[in-house]
Amino acid sequence: MTIRIAVAGASGYAGGEILRLLLGHPRYAAGEIEIGALTAGGNAGTTVRAHHPHLLPLADVVLADTTPEVLAGHDVVFLGLPHGTSAVIADALPPTTIVIDCGADFRLSDAQDWADYYGGEHAGTWPYGLPELPGNRDKLRDASRIAVPGCYPTISILSLLPALAARVVEPHVTIVAVSGTSGAGRAPKADLLAAEVIGSARAYGVGGVHRHTPEISQALSAAADEPVTVSFTPVLVPMARGILATCTARTSATAADVAAIYEKAYGDETFIHVLPDGALPTTGSVLGSNAVQLSVTVDERSGTLVAVGAIDNLTKGTGGAAVQSMNLALGWGEAEGLSVVGVAP
Amino acid sequence: MTIRIAVAGASGYAGGEILRLLLGHPRYAAGEIEIGALTAGGNAGTTVRAHHPHLLPLADVVLADTTPEVLAGHDVVFLGLPHGTSAVIADALPPTTIVIDCGADFRLSDAQDWADYYGGEHAGTWPYGLPELPGNRDKLRDASRIAVPGCYPTISILSLLPALAARVVEPHVTIVAVSGTSGAGRAPKADLLAAEVIGSARAYGVGGVHRHTPEISQALSAAADEPVTVSFTPVLVPMARGILATCTARTSATAADVAAIYEKAYGDETFIHVLPDGALPTTGSVLGSNAVQLSVTVDERSGTLVAVGAIDNLTKGTGGAAVQSMNLALGWGEAEGLSVVGVAP
Amino acid sequence: MTIRIAVAGASGYAGGEILRLLLGHPRYAAGEIEIGALTAGGNAGTTVRAHHPHLLPLADVVLADTTPEVLAGHDVVFLGLPHGTSAVIADALPPTTIVIDCGADFRLSDAQDWADYYGGEHAGTWPYGLPELPGNRDKLRDASRIAVPGCYPTISILSLLPALAARVVEPHVTIVAVSGTSGAGRAPKADLLAAEVIGSARAYGVGGVHRHTPEISQALSAAADEPVTVSFTPVLVPMARGILATCTARTSATAADVAAIYEKAYGDETFIHVLPDGALPTTGSVLGSNAVQLSVTVDERSGTLVAVGAIDNLTKGTGGAAVQSMNLALGWGEAEGLSVVGVAP
Amino acid sequence: MTIRIAVAGASGYAGGEILRLLLGHPRYAAGEIEIGALTAGGNAGTTVRAHHPHLLPLADVVLADTTPEVLAGHDVVFLGLPHGTSAVIADALPPTTIVIDCGADFRLSDAQDWADYYGGEHAGTWPYGLPELPGNRDKLRDASRIAVPGCYPTISILSLLPALAARVVEPHVTIVAVSGTSGAGRAPKADLLAAEVIGSARAYGVGGVHRHTPEISQALSAAADEPVTVSFTPVLVPMARGILATCTARTSATAADVAAIYEKAYGDETFIHVLPDGALPTTGSVLGSNAVQLSVTVDERSGTLVAVGAIDNLTKGTGGAAVQSMNLALGWGEAEGLSVVGVAP
Repeated sequence: MTIRIAVAGASGYAGGEILRLLLGHPRYAAGEIEIGALTAGGNAGTTVRAHHPHLLPLADVVLADTTPEVLAGHDVVFLGLPHGTSAVIADALPPTTIVIDCGADFRLSDAQDWADYYGGEHAGTWPYGLPELPGNRDKLRDASRIAVPGCYPTISILSLLPALAARVVEPHVTIVAVSGTSGAGRAPKADLLAAEVIGSARAYGVGGVHRHTPEISQALSAAADEPVTVSFTPVLVPMARGILATCTARTSATAADVAAIYEKAYGDETFIHVLPDGALPTTGSVLGSNAVQLSVTVDERSGTLVAVGAIDNLTKGTGGAAVQSMNLALGWGEAEGLSVVGVAP
Repeated sequence: MTIRIAVAGASGYAGGEILRLLLGHPRYAAGEIEIGALTAGGNAGTTVRAHHPHLLPLADVVLADTTPEVLAGHDVVFLGLPHGTSAVIADALPPTTIVIDCGADFRLSDAQDWADYYGGEHAGTWPYGLPELPGNRDKLRDASRIAVPGCYPTISILSLLPALAARVVEPHVTIVAVSGTSGAGRAPKADLLAAEVIGSARAYGVGGVHRHTPEISQALSAAADEPVTVSFTPVLVPMARGILATCTARTSATAADVAAIYEKAYGDETFIHVLPDGALPTTGSVLGSNAVQLSVTVDERSGTLVAVGAIDNLTKGTGGAAVQSMNLALGWGEAEGLSVVGVAP
Repeated sequence: MTIRIAVAGASGYAGGEILRLLLGHPRYAAGEIEIGALTAGGNAGTTVRAHHPHLLPLADVVLADTTPEVLAGHDVVFLGLPHGTSAVIADALPPTTIVIDCGADFRLSDAQDWADYYGGEHAGTWPYGLPELPGNRDKLRDASRIAVPGCYPTISILSLLPALAARVVEPHVTIVAVSGTSGAGRAPKADLLAAEVIGSARAYGVGGVHRHTPEISQALSAAADEPVTVSFTPVLVPMARGILATCTARTSATAADVAAIYEKAYGDETFIHVLPDGALPTTGSVLGSNAVQLSVTVDERSGTLVAVGAIDNLTKGTGGAAVQSMNLALGWGEAEGLSVVGVAP
Repeated sequence: MTIRIAVAGASGYAGGEILRLLLGHPRYAAGEIEIGALTAGGNAGTTVRAHHPHLLPLADVVLADTTPEVLAGHDVVFLGLPHGTSAVIADALPPTTIVIDCGADFRLSDAQDWADYYGGEHAGTWPYGLPELPGNRDKLRDASRIAVPGCYPTISILSLLPALAARVVEPHVTIVAVSGTSGAGRAPKADLLAAEVIGSARAYGVGGVHRHTPEISQALSAAADEPVTVSFTPVLVPMARGILATCTARTSATAADVAAIYEKAYGDETFIHVLPDGALPTTGSVLGSNAVQLSVTVDERSGTLVAVGAIDNLTKGTGGAAVQSMNLALGWGEAEGLSVVGVAP
């Protein structure tokens, strides 16, 4: 049986990453995956080569318009669309089609959060494509609509969740996450030009206004079973890919307590690697992979738990999570086509 | 009158930056500054060109050995030496010689802090070369021994001090500072190779073990007049220069309160620029300059003050602070030879 | 006497660099330079801070429209405008106003070259703002209209001119020049986004179609007194600033011959440094400076002269050359406000 | 049947890349590849994690000493050793063991070239691990000793070979190749520190003295059936991986002639992609892949063929070529475990 897959928003970074992973998926080589419609908005009519010169097997494919008609007739449809545009597409597709949305529209459960951070009407809430959340994996196995988490939430939530679930930290967390600029997307803006970014670091969305803040808070509050306030600051640094999140919370636990909690939480996870004492994650070591590298320690002088996590924002942070979710929804092996080995140095 | 200046440790980054600034000092062009002995450890006998190809006017100068004899007979001696080695040199120089140490030996006032973080015997405490600390400028005008602050402490302290002095934040602060790798010095190490650093971000000294932690705590506690605990995490990113510090503390103050406090604290400072609402600092915009760019806001949802500060770690963070201190100690204009205009993009 | 200076195109990289240099010019500190109108096209009405956060002393200046009326009443007008737009402005300014154009309009002497590479009508030819060309310095001292060279031509011409003038190489030269992306300007384009540029090198304008090719050929042919054909390939690499040009031509001369020729040609030049044997230029060492670092050698096995040159494309390659030309035209010291010391590392 | 594979020099970049590719090889997942001894010199006794934190499945493997005894009992032995040290190891292994050397020892056929560029005694000549050379693929199918090409030679040879074989260019070629710094290896050196490399481009080995020069000349001369002189200049730029080679030679052929020649030469090659007119290679698009992206054109004004080629120096330039050679020598599919899809952006 062949699964036919479409990608809407194929000229963007999320779409490109999904396609990269599909081309390397063992079921693609085996003929069980067929890449169908690739669509775009303003880039419709151009070839894949113009946007993704690394995707040589698809180089001459011409991008179609993103319409329900073009996307019909596929078993899986990935959406990499601007915020607020997924619902119309999804509603027009049969309920049996697996729709995996890389946008924000269906991530939040609280309509007020949506109104505060995105504006407009809340589209709804879909199963959250982070299988490593407690109890979440089974929900994804039955899902035909999946909302892929934001890149910052993925690493922030995974870095802090065990400590909050075990209630060994105060429910106020501080996250400073440095990121490569691919997370900001591919629309040309002056402040994302290479000449502006190279040699410079800058924070943005300072003061809790970044749209990923409520998404982080939502998952951590659920884990802690009490409201968790989140101070979140993203920092752009001169890299193309990668997020390194430094996550802190007040604690009176010991380093040994905390190590045991994280080991228990993640010991069986394929993609989450809690590093041994003395090792620290780097974004370079997860580049292009679906791995999460974590370290966790306690600064006893200041009474602070410090969890540091690294992911590739385009892989585990977007396209890898999308493929991981697809694997689950199709009943395939969760890790198929996804590696824990990064491309380094 | 001509001031004769020596630089010990001239092959390192601190020494190179001091020399760059001296070559651009208006009193150098006027003949009032003479660059005397340039010394090194293992690099003695080599030329400046081999280490600092950008310092063309000094390219053929041969580095001498770092000994008290070579450094004698100068009006000002800058020290850019490994930790623990400045005291011997300084003791051998006349008390009237202005000695400005870029190392850590004389920064800490608490011998226990020294023992905990550096080990060995505490050398003593010199006036701290951060003129912007309340009351500190006058001490530097009379000083003939000055300890230049560490790069991370400079921006961390300046970012948080007004809020702590005004007691509008809790005395527990969290600092995550991203830095270019010149701060790690020039001794070759595998993990500082370009191939390891480019495309990768990594934290180090996690858990409060970085040696700059007690230096930050010392100044902030003095300002707050109570003990301030510090959670400090440095993060290396793929840049040569620059530190961007994201500094947070719990607060119940409003953004307007805080803006007024910072404006009052820094409104008259030449080098500290508190940016208007909506503007955020970038390290690129302070490159090569002595400027400090700061923004401060309050995240009311999470009750957090967020101060973000940017400096060039080699200029305001080291060599610029050293020259600024020298200017004060010599009775010159504090800002001579120092610019607030960075080299961007 | 105060010289009043306007900059048209002040929101671009050329304009920003000219302003950076003017702010550091000793005659600005002395009150002999006044910065007057700063103008822009689409960015008119915004502040300097929005485009050049490093130019703190001008941060709150509002950009005016680029019109002859606004630019009238200045002693010097710098133009950093799109190709083809300088002539209208220049024609409307009095002949006594010193107009220094950073665009291409007045660089070429051959109208056919203009037609072939730029299209449209040739505006004319102004004195060429490269004082280091033989006999050119005096022309600039009398000029009130100056065309600043392109960045690639500056380093290509200076790297090869002595060899061609001395006729020790064949009149066919091959130039491969790697460049930071600030040379491509500040208009947002997808292929100049940081995520595309970081981690990637790419050639462009391959096959002799880059517009700087005829400009290089023009100057080298004049020096050689015979037609010189030029194979020129620019390569974008992940840097903000800097050009490193590797320039080759067949030769039967020896390395010693060539060294003598270059020493004779450039021994008295302030900004051109022919490095001693064994030293090679780096773009990092000229960053922000007006220095040209050159090395020249002969590969005797392949009978090739190899000249490698480095400049900062925004300084000696644009803004520095503009200020150097202004200094000459005003009768000031040619090197005032310009340094040979780069900001490194 | 399980193939047991050892890697000597496993802590270096070549060794790490070979291991990355083996972990992703479909026969590793199928249990047909077993990773046996991993050895090192000075790093023996440390774990893989300390050197290659991206190789999570091998993180806790302890590196053994590089001795013939440790390397015995494997079907395939990869050598990533310092020049001059492979022969002793290879001689001690049975002739049936497939030994694939990533060093230079067995690449050159001319003992004088070895003496001139490396010094010491020439070890011999092994089949050259570049299957895309005319007639070479069959030799590798029978080989049990293979010399993997240098990274610069791989792309330089592939970029120019069709034109020289077809004798449409003069037998004098000029190559300027920009490279990331991983090609310089992992031994710590001051001039490879991130702070020195970031923001700076520099040539090295200028004047034909780089050791890859005779290797390029050897292959091109064989293809042209006449001596080809090579002017080769490598340029380090701020990237971790990737080589972009701009290769020129005088020609009187047309662009159409040349396009046809390259299409004929490479149309059937899996890994070599000659891009359509208007597309140009980027190193970013081949990152981590075994692909070669080429463009070729003719600058008719200057009578120059310009071929631009991109590879990942660690993959097609080293580890990928090694695995491709292994696949051939074992009778496996040549492309198994090797992708043409890079990790971009």
